[in-house]
Amino acid sequence: MEDYHKPDQQTVQALRNIANRLRIHSIKATTAAGNGHPTSCCSVAEIMSVLFFHTMKYRPEDPRYFNNDRFILSKGHAAPALYSIWVETGYLKESDLFSLCHVDCGVESHAVTRQQFMDVATGSVGQGLGVACGMAYSGKYFDKSSYRVYCLLGDGEMSEGSVWEAMSFASYYQLDNLVAIIDINRLGQSDTAPLQHHVEKYQRRCEAFGWHAIIADGHSVEELCKALSQPRHQPTAIIAKTIKGKGIPAAEDKLGWHAKPLPKDMSEMVIKELQGRIMNSSKHLYPPAPIEDSPPVSLRNIRMPSAPSYKAGEKISTRKAYGMALAKLGRYNERVVALDGDTNNLTYSEIFKNEHPNRFVECYIAQQNMVSVAMGCAARDRNVVFASTLASFFTRAFDQLRMAAISESNINLCGSHCGLSTGEEGPSLMGLEDMAMFRALPSATIFYPCDGVSVEKAVELAAMTKGVSYIRTSRQDWGIIYNSNDDFHVGQAKVVYQSKEDQVTVVAAGVTLHEALAAAEHLKKDRISVRVIDPFTIKPLDIKTIMDHTRATRGRVLTVEDHYYEGGLGEAVSAAMINESAFNLHRLAVPSVPRSGKPHELMKVYGIDRDAIAQAIRKMLSSSTNAK
Amino acid sequence: MEDYHKPDQQTVQALRNIANRLRIHSIKATTAAGNGHPTSCCSVAEIMSVLFFHTMKYRPEDPRYFNNDRFILSKGHAAPALYSIWVETGYLKESDLFSLCHVDCGVESHAVTRQQFMDVATGSVGQGLGVACGMAYSGKYFDKSSYRVYCLLGDGEMSEGSVWEAMSFASYYQLDNLVAIIDINRLGQSDTAPLQHHVEKYQRRCEAFGWHAIIADGHSVEELCKALSQPRHQPTAIIAKTIKGKGIPAAEDKLGWHAKPLPKDMSEMVIKELQGRIMNSSKHLYPPAPIEDSPPVSLRNIRMPSAPSYKAGEKISTRKAYGMALAKLGRYNERVVALDGDTNNLTYSEIFKNEHPNRFVECYIAQQNMVSVAMGCAARDRNVVFASTLASFFTRAFDQLRMAAISESNINLCGSHCGLSTGEEGPSLMGLEDMAMFRALPSATIFYPCDGVSVEKAVELAAMTKGVSYIRTSRQDWGIIYNSNDDFHVGQAKVVYQSKEDQVTVVAAGVTLHEALAAAEHLKKDRISVRVIDPFTIKPLDIKTIMDHTRATRGRVLTVEDHYYEGGLGEAVSAAMINESAFNLHRLAVPSVPRSGKPHELMKVYGIDRDAIAQAIRKMLSSSTNAK
Repeated sequence: MEDYHKPDQQTVQALRNIANRLRIHSIKATTAAGNGHPTSCCSVAEIMSVLFFHTMKYRPEDPRYFNNDRFILSKGHAAPALYSIWVETGYLKESDLFSLCHVDCGVESHAVTRQQFMDVATGSVGQGLGVACGMAYSGKYFDKSSYRVYCLLGDGEMSEGSVWEAMSFASYYQLDNLVAIIDINRLGQSDTAPLQHHVEKYQRRCEAFGWHAIIADGHSVEELCKALSQPRHQPTAIIAKTIKGKGIPAAEDKLGWHAKPLPKDMSEMVIKELQGRIMNSSKHLYPPAPIEDSPPVSLRNIRMPSAPSYKAGEKISTRKAYGMALAKLGRYNERVVALDGDTNNLTYSEIFKNEHPNRFVECYIAQQNMVSVAMGCAARDRNVVFASTLASFFTRAFDQLRMAAISESNINLCGSHCGLSTGEEGPSLMGLEDMAMFRALPSATIFYPCDGVSVEKAVELAAMTKGVSYIRTSRQDWGIIYNSNDDFHVGQAKVVYQSKEDQVTVVAAGVTLHEALAAAEHLKKDRISVRVIDPFTIKPLDIKTIMDHTRATRGRVLTVEDHYYEGGLGEAVSAAMINESAFNLHRLAVPSVPRSGKPHELMKVYGIDRDAIAQAIRKMLSSSTNAK
Repeated sequence: MEDYHKPDQQTVQALRNIANRLRIHSIKATTAAGNGHPTSCCSVAEIMSVLFFHTMKYRPEDPRYFNNDRFILSKGHAAPALYSIWVETGYLKESDLFSLCHVDCGVESHAVTRQQFMDVATGSVGQGLGVACGMAYSGKYFDKSSYRVYCLLGDGEMSEGSVWEAMSFASYYQLDNLVAIIDINRLGQSDTAPLQHHVEKYQRRCEAFGWHAIIADGHSVEELCKALSQPRHQPTAIIAKTIKGKGIPAAEDKLGWHAKPLPKDMSEMVIKELQGRIMNSSKHLYPPAPIEDSPPVSLRNIRMPSAPSYKAGEKISTRKAYGMALAKLGRYNERVVALDGDTNNLTYSEIFKNEHPNRFVECYIAQQNMVSVAMGCAARDRNVVFASTLASFFTRAFDQLRMAAISESNINLCGSHCGLSTGEEGPSLMGLEDMAMFRALPSATIFYPCDGVSVEKAVELAAMTKGVSYIRTSRQDWGIIYNSNDDFHVGQAKVVYQSKEDQVTVVAAGVTLHEALAAAEHLKKDRISVRVIDPFTIKPLDIKTIMDHTRATRGRVLTVEDHYYEGGLGEAVSAAMINESAFNLHRLAVPSVPRSGKPHELMKVYGIDRDAIAQAIRKMLSSSTNAK
């Protein structure tokens, strides 16, 4: 075997010692915290020991060094095992462990990115392998480097479909630099895992999904060293048969011990017994050094080289403008990469694909995995990632998005076909809850551009905005509204239509902005003047501009959105201006599940088109006149 | 083979004729609509013909008859093929097809439940098999009946992890009454499907997941009849190799034809050619009659047999009260069933499980599939279904929930461990965006009970409420607030603390209601009186009661919620009372991703505990005094 050096007995004993110290640390930390999953840590003790002190190449003093091998703890509840390993490397102090779960400390119950050695937060299971796929894809195809990616999964999470999305992805792209170690400890939270200890069934599934799958005794450091040293031409899965709670006699292979710290006296007894297993070994193990062959990367100053070049009168959909803008950004920034989920000819990421085929990743119809892959590609600031699919399909990945927010991941997403203006394809393909979803992600930024110019600005700004950025695009073609040299900022609204006599402020975005402008033109004939504001970003929302103009229009403000009433633009404005007593806000949005139909028909039927806007404005004016 | 009767040549020809008429109908309908997926219909023509006129047992005049075999079109974009079949059965008129996608018609681009022959809406792919699993589980274990369930999938959607969640579920529960037919037509929306025409790879994956998998030529009615007639001891997958656009020479097996209706002239030419293939057959095919062995079921009057029996002073968590209430409801209503995703000892659905083991379905860690299975179990009003897991994990199934709302499915969900009062486990396990998500589902009902009594009422009301009902429960124990004979209604708030001198109305739910009561007691010592309102349901929200009491407290109202600011209680109240000029609303909610910590510490740090409430109230009073 290519690079397999059978470890000598001293090394074997040293690895066993580390494993048992890891058990001791994990038990101590969770007992001190009165919380945590010691039995889930004990099943992976030898796996972690071998990975971190025999297999992985990395700088222990610099956990996020870009040439290091990567490690993703998909079973995030085993976080104390990972903290313990970094105590063993010397990066953490043993005393750090005893603040586990304290509100003011850095070691939490499940893995979070506050620690340098965690690239992403885990804890909602089944998501780590997709992130690992993104890292491995980046290593193999973007960095073209030697670092490898190791992902430790639990057997419970093998029931999550997202894992099999990642399995497909890895074999499709022949990620031979990716190793999944599956901790088959048989027991879940409330019951046994469905396949129990049938390791051969796991092996068959992994093989059918195109992986090289090796069964190993997960408590034998020799077997693990051997399995992890096998040459690879495919992604490799180590199916590690383990005992949950291994080393805690009363809990070994027993239900009822998940997520339970040991009582203090039991903990002391077990620790004593484990300490007895630690044999003197003259050998002190150091992790092998990383191979230094990744290119240095800087993601500062990812900028458009020139202003947008749209002409007045030109018509283009915001989705197509997205594809063009992304291709342009990619032309001058080689670490800009794009992902899509078999919708690149709908989202128009195909324009990027055609121009930069080596930086386009087809993720097929697996949106959960696409978001996780995006997180993996973005980790350690290796790439500026844009992932696109239909806005409605991002609901598939809400949990991944939630974890991306917790991870402080820098990913950019574009959802096309937003709202019922999507038309004939019907409600299943209309994104009508996407703003509610992204607004509920702390620190997310939501761009909702209305024309080619603002899309291009949104793409450029998203690339440089930290956290999860979301760009909402639409299906239909519309005219250009902005000038190429208009300046755009996150959280800065634009007044696109105004006069001194304006009586109502209309806040609208995307398709409804165009409808609002048409309504404004129409109302002008009846000598009704209205002001139209484009918020540009829905989160953060430029409430100051909206309020200033609302004041100028005698407190009258109307929001119009191609989205359900709940959680979108109208509620954001409501919540922000609730205590302005002289204001009168009305909202137009989609009140119920729409049908199929032509876009303009649907906008009329569900009350968000120019006629509905004009009617609402007339009503606001007449009721305020009556009131006087 | 047990029940395989090789079809005679007349039957074979008749089946081929139906297939070609289905092609003609689908092409005509999509060309007339200028929208739709004719090539995706053409690849399944023979499959549909054989299923509906040779294999399936059903009453064509009564598509939702409970003894019928079930059919789920997971590839919902092939809806015109399904409409065409029902034209062939005589249930629809041919002319119905020509209103496809019109805003005022019943035949939409993707499958919706407006039609009796569609049990659930599809269109967001990868969800049908989970629904079929729910139907098959219900047929085998609850109804103990002969009806079978057939699910037609596309190859593109085999990339969705949710399909593999369903594959695991079906084999684990040995659903030998379930048949999946996978239309391997090689081509997706923007590209080839990853496994192209490698039917043997699909077969290997299905077999590894415990299915009997048969490869067949999807355009050979003989092969399909044979494959569909094989005896089954496992769930069966027919891997049908097909040609996308089969019968449309210019589009056959070609990329670029997905979701494209044929131009009129091309359509006419192709139809003429297809008509030429329809041979005279003396045989008129009728579907075989269903086997009449399902029990009749009535889901009317699913009620609790008695009032709650909690005593004042008793302490119980709302999650535990949920498990007890559900077990009680199940005791007197035998069609009440419960699902969970390996969290039954966290959500306390284990109490139901222990009492009614035959009506509990363990779905393991596969939340997407759990929601789909719930929809399948609930279809045709066979069962009252409650599915539970952690509130945060329901984000995993947002797309399924969205489709459940579009489907008008009657499912009840319970999310435990809501909010940061979950404590030490950290943000990945805290449901902080669940209200935003469920509020954005049209017609959803959100119960947020605060004690054992209101939980029991919520469970009873949810069972009888149409659409998606969601019950939000918490981890910690609290005292009982309500009397056993208090009356609860959907959309009716409760005033739980009041006096004539109240100066501020506090709207709070769950844990924050208890905190608000503590704050009220505390403030009383300082002669500050506040009123406390429990909305009970967040959607629909009893805004009238909230406003009436806000008026009584001089317009001052404070909302407090263990949820992010966006999309929850505070925004719902803001949006509803925005134009009340004399009101002064303040909101307390979770402003950012929380850390791990003790529940009371976290509530303090993030500003939603009794102290934060008291402080906010003092501030409201002092600023309104200053203003005077």
